[in-house]
Amino acid sequence: MSYNLAPLQNLIDQFERMQGIGHKTAQRMAFYVLGLSDEEANNFAKAITDAHTKIKQCSVCCNLADSELCHICQSTARDKSVICVVEDPRDVAAIERTHEYNGTYHVLHGAISPMDNIGPDQIKIKELMARLNDDTVEEVIMATNPTVEGEATAMYISRLLKPLGITVSRLAYGVPVGADLEYADEVTLSRALEGRSLI
Amino acid sequence: MSYNLAPLQNLIDQFERMQGIGHKTAQRMAFYVLGLSDEEANNFAKAITDAHTKIKQCSVCCNLADSELCHICQSTARDKSVICVVEDPRDVAAIERTHEYNGTYHVLHGAISPMDNIGPDQIKIKELMARLNDDTVEEVIMATNPTVEGEATAMYISRLLKPLGITVSRLAYGVPVGADLEYADEVTLSRALEGRSLI
Repeated sequence: MSYNLAPLQNLIDQFERMQGIGHKTAQRMAFYVLGLSDEEANNFAKAITDAHTKIKQCSVCCNLADSELCHICQSTARDKSVICVVEDPRDVAAIERTHEYNGTYHVLHGAISPMDNIGPDQIKIKELMARLNDDTVEEVIMATNPTVEGEATAMYISRLLKPLGITVSRLAYGVPVGADLEYADEVTLSRALEGRSLI
Repeated sequence: MSYNLAPLQNLIDQFERMQGIGHKTAQRMAFYVLGLSDEEANNFAKAITDAHTKIKQCSVCCNLADSELCHICQSTARDKSVICVVEDPRDVAAIERTHEYNGTYHVLHGAISPMDNIGPDQIKIKELMARLNDDTVEEVIMATNPTVEGEATAMYISRLLKPLGITVSRLAYGVPVGADLEYADEVTLSRALEGRSLI
């Protein structure tokens, strides 16, 4: 559908380009913008350029940061001897929500996936290796996603780290707390059985 | 969840303010923006301000327009003796898609709804009445949504128009009652146009 209005059509196209946003939703979003006040619309546009220009990657852990270092690498309260390796900045936020982890992170920005032409050089493995040179790091926790790609990445990195004498661990597999056993898939259940612990 | 990054949080908030966009979707959209190239992000921001500043209301029919008159009011091919009254610019686009209607439109930008404090003065009824002064208009088709508010608005306007000797018709109940005109399919809409009845 066309409204014969280039600026409106362009805005709809911009929204529609986002993953998971269909034509109707994009349209509704564009009409939302038309309904904003001048100030609100300017703030919206500014929020986009601001987020894009001000947010960089932390020079140590590759997490999102608005300065040279992210707030976790800046903190003196965090245990610098443990690094938790995740695929995505959102995973950092998810683990932070548990309030159970006091080490640092390393964000790979992806996982090894030959199908998508993503090899070890396309993700931040080099940057991780560079952090291990000064002997402060004692343990690396692999918290990549429990998918084929995440597993492959965890295996690849653990093989690189083993010769350095660094402890490499992996997030435990099992049934998610609060879920129904009946709905757990077979692979998860077998992993949960394998990893059972004494009570 | 907070990322401790004001520009990112601000962008997420901006997306979340839109109707129908939850926190997770807003987050995904913000990360989409972070992943854009500089040029793409600027284009996105520009699309928002452009759409907002360039798109106005047509001075005749109150449809969206990027100049004084919308493309329908500008057209000499359209039959100026018929006005189709709709609630929303999206309804114009929906009826245009049928390719069955050659008259002009009038966009009310809402419907009478005492529950929401929207009376006849809050929608573009005055502007509609102003168009009826010079005797060119012979018929007004009420194509407000088939909802309580849309019906009430159609009744209200038809009572204003009857004394002026103008034929007032209503879309036939080919449109499913209770649904939104914007989502009606083309065939249903054409049938509704064909079978319009006097009120």
